[in-house]
Amino acid sequence: MTSAPSIEPRFLVNKHDLGVVAVGFSGGQPKAGVDAAPMALIEAGLIQQLQDDLELNVEYDGQVHSYSEFIPADDPPFRNMKQPRFVSAVTQQVSEQVYKYAKEGKMVVTLGGDHSIAIGTVSGTARAIRERFGRELAVVWVDAHADINTPETSESGNVHGMPVAFLTGLAKEERSDIFGWIKEHHKLSVKKLVYIGLRDIDRGEKKILKDHGIKAFSMHDIDRYGIGKVMDMALGWIGSDTPIHLSFDVDALDPMWAPSTGTPVRGGLTLREGDFIAECVAATGSLIALDLVEVNPSLDEHGASDTVRAGCSIVRCALGDTLL
Amino acid sequence: MTSAPSIEPRFLVNKHDLGVVAVGFSGGQPKAGVDAAPMALIEAGLIQQLQDDLELNVEYDGQVHSYSEFIPADDPPFRNMKQPRFVSAVTQQVSEQVYKYAKEGKMVVTLGGDHSIAIGTVSGTARAIRERFGRELAVVWVDAHADINTPETSESGNVHGMPVAFLTGLAKEERSDIFGWIKEHHKLSVKKLVYIGLRDIDRGEKKILKDHGIKAFSMHDIDRYGIGKVMDMALGWIGSDTPIHLSFDVDALDPMWAPSTGTPVRGGLTLREGDFIAECVAATGSLIALDLVEVNPSLDEHGASDTVRAGCSIVRCALGDTLL
Amino acid sequence: MTSAPSIEPRFLVNKHDLGVVAVGFSGGQPKAGVDAAPMALIEAGLIQQLQDDLELNVEYDGQVHSYSEFIPADDPPFRNMKQPRFVSAVTQQVSEQVYKYAKEGKMVVTLGGDHSIAIGTVSGTARAIRERFGRELAVVWVDAHADINTPETSESGNVHGMPVAFLTGLAKEERSDIFGWIKEHHKLSVKKLVYIGLRDIDRGEKKILKDHGIKAFSMHDIDRYGIGKVMDMALGWIGSDTPIHLSFDVDALDPMWAPSTGTPVRGGLTLREGDFIAECVAATGSLIALDLVEVNPSLDEHGASDTVRAGCSIVRCALGDTLL
Ligand SMILES: [Mn+2]
Ligand SMILES: [Mn+2]
Ligand SMILES: [Mn+2]
Ligand SMILES: [Mn+2]
Ligand SMILES: [Mn+2]
Ligand SMILES: [Mn+2]
Repeated sequence: MTSAPSIEPRFLVNKHDLGVVAVGFSGGQPKAGVDAAPMALIEAGLIQQLQDDLELNVEYDGQVHSYSEFIPADDPPFRNMKQPRFVSAVTQQVSEQVYKYAKEGKMVVTLGGDHSIAIGTVSGTARAIRERFGRELAVVWVDAHADINTPETSESGNVHGMPVAFLTGLAKEERSDIFGWIKEHHKLSVKKLVYIGLRDIDRGEKKILKDHGIKAFSMHDIDRYGIGKVMDMALGWIGSDTPIHLSFDVDALDPMWAPSTGTPVRGGLTLREGDFIAECVAATGSLIALDLVEVNPSLDEHGASDTVRAGCSIVRCALGDTLL
Repeated sequence: MTSAPSIEPRFLVNKHDLGVVAVGFSGGQPKAGVDAAPMALIEAGLIQQLQDDLELNVEYDGQVHSYSEFIPADDPPFRNMKQPRFVSAVTQQVSEQVYKYAKEGKMVVTLGGDHSIAIGTVSGTARAIRERFGRELAVVWVDAHADINTPETSESGNVHGMPVAFLTGLAKEERSDIFGWIKEHHKLSVKKLVYIGLRDIDRGEKKILKDHGIKAFSMHDIDRYGIGKVMDMALGWIGSDTPIHLSFDVDALDPMWAPSTGTPVRGGLTLREGDFIAECVAATGSLIALDLVEVNPSLDEHGASDTVRAGCSIVRCALGDTLL
Repeated sequence: MTSAPSIEPRFLVNKHDLGVVAVGFSGGQPKAGVDAAPMALIEAGLIQQLQDDLELNVEYDGQVHSYSEFIPADDPPFRNMKQPRFVSAVTQQVSEQVYKYAKEGKMVVTLGGDHSIAIGTVSGTARAIRERFGRELAVVWVDAHADINTPETSESGNVHGMPVAFLTGLAKEERSDIFGWIKEHHKLSVKKLVYIGLRDIDRGEKKILKDHGIKAFSMHDIDRYGIGKVMDMALGWIGSDTPIHLSFDVDALDPMWAPSTGTPVRGGLTLREGDFIAECVAATGSLIALDLVEVNPSLDEHGASDTVRAGCSIVRCALGDTLL
């Protein structure tokens, strides 16, 4: 049982208004099913809980977008990327959807979909925050993976492993139909990015993180310091004067709690640690947007409902639900 | 493999004598089966282990009490409480059973039964400690729930959600057949109550905890500080000069370790954390009574034996069993 | 995905050369199957991973030794020990195999087999380190059990519960066919031994640990301080000037992660904590040998692959694999 959050937001018009974008998109990776996540989360009662328990005014267009109108006639790989035009067009559209809410000073919750959609969500909030406050956004990226491959370092070519590279400008492309639409005002500084939960990093990614001095807390750090201290360090790095976009890949959780996801990796966060991260970000009062991605209800017959429940729990915690 | 405890008790006549009360009672909540817990714990070898491994002199009347002689002819709800006369009469009897051992300076272990029986156990030890030492008792309440609803704030009307309210006087009733038997000498001060493990608190309960400044460590605190620091804080709050009654609801443990219980809640204590809490309380030398409640062997076919084993482990640790 | 370790070893000739000894031996305890562990680990890709991902030069004779040539015609119990002549002969042979690599300044990885084989591995490295540096070895023994029973304190007579007693000289025997081959240069000082993960200690063992002031971190300590602080304390005790032999019994892990082992005990290390221990020892640069023992693929139909994977993970971490 929960109650209305008491946190006063620093960068939102009020603490009640919330926009939801339901992104039924799986084109950034090869496994079907992740597009069904938004509906599974909603059917599990997520929006109802936000309205009833957390007393939020939820603005939601009532539909899970499939973006089928953006499927190109032909979409051959480009610079190793799979389905590059489709992913580009969808994320551009998501960027607009998220921007619209964020520009009004509303909290934005995006229910994915695979993690490629964060190209849309973060670019949308980054632009809105620049326009509203003339400043940069910070991103807390909670994930087993760094998702910072460039098209050239990626082995798979799946764009859900590249969103951070495009958002930070480490990957660039001029073609307007393949991420050329990402302009400076959409971008994220590598200095404003903090990872939590990393444990399966490609060799090329390790080099990128090191070369750019990107702040990253792996599972090793969480074991060493405890999640309490890690969150102190992560949020201390960001500071109290910066709006935060939380992009939460459910595969950050251990498969014991969230098995139904495309690329599970053992040795992850407990459900408690996942909730704790969301609670700590909420408690800053600086949260302005949340993505919940990579729930794939079709992958694990028994574990799907656990994974969906874990996802709902993360969202509620990020929106101010507390135990006491 | 274990060995006799080496802790010198501060508030017991000696470190060997122990009274066991087996309370086969399920009337404080709607699910059958929790009344079978004492027998399941005993059949799993609990009393034998206390005698053989911990070298305790166990006084036990050899029977699991069902209290059927206290079933009233008619027991309609009163102030929203279900089975109020039956629960009142049973807990009054349990209070006498526990008082008898505690008055003699013996450690008392009560095997429940649902958590409503703590109305009996804590009132019995509170009275005995007042008579023996002229002072108040502290209670460490380990639970997913706060069990501090009043009849009026409770949605379910199940008394196992209300024991702390009656024990602290936050809930009162004059009728002698419905908890009117609880007198001042039976009561617990809200300042002497410490919760550990909370994670499913009703909205009314949140307000009660806040309004009365009740010390509570939720799962959020355990994640933030670690269980080691939390126990330092919890026991520091109580101080070294106060007898401790430990009331342990097995649903404080995560369902991964204790699934067979009436109201399981995810995100709970690990078995290790549960044992650790019991070990730390034991190490104070101030423990004078222990309740183990809400084991329900009939609820989870596969998990029942795990839950029973977890319960045995908690009891052994609270009575001085150590790893090294 | 992993990368070549960057740690400069303090006590090895270089950071690339590694000798593997595959010990298919189960004679130190009664359950068949633990002799199949080396093959299961190798078939799971362990050696390949060391070569490809960690860029190690692996020297391996390509065979899992069964030591059938050492089976004595007659091997009755002696001083309560079961199969004493067979275990003695095999461990003497293992000692030579390990010594050969260690003497050359190579890292030695021994894949067991039950934990009795550590009589061979530690005696082999202790001798080599004395010859190479004129100094003593430290041993980090990660285990649910202390394995420090003498033949007289052991209830079972299984030698896999006695290796530490023979290695430290707490157990002695003159007969050359029953561990009389263990000479002073093979031995380990009790001051150079550190346990991590203990939770099932025999009463006689508790007394031994206490009487000799042996450094031991039980699960209670890990809960109290967190694994990060425990590793600081454990490695601080050893100091930075001492070569380390890590003897890792997979039953140190909780059965949730490593169920397929001969004597599982609940309340153990998480997989993350196990990896963390190995990573921390690796990071000292002082590791000169690693044993991975007690994986028994035949004991748990569903859990065998998890246990094998956990074992591979521990080995990779100890050899310098890192998350970031
Ligand atoms: Mn991701
Ligand atoms: Mn991921
Ligand atoms: Mn309770
Ligand atoms: Mn409860
Ligand atoms: Mn062991
Ligand atoms: Mn062992």
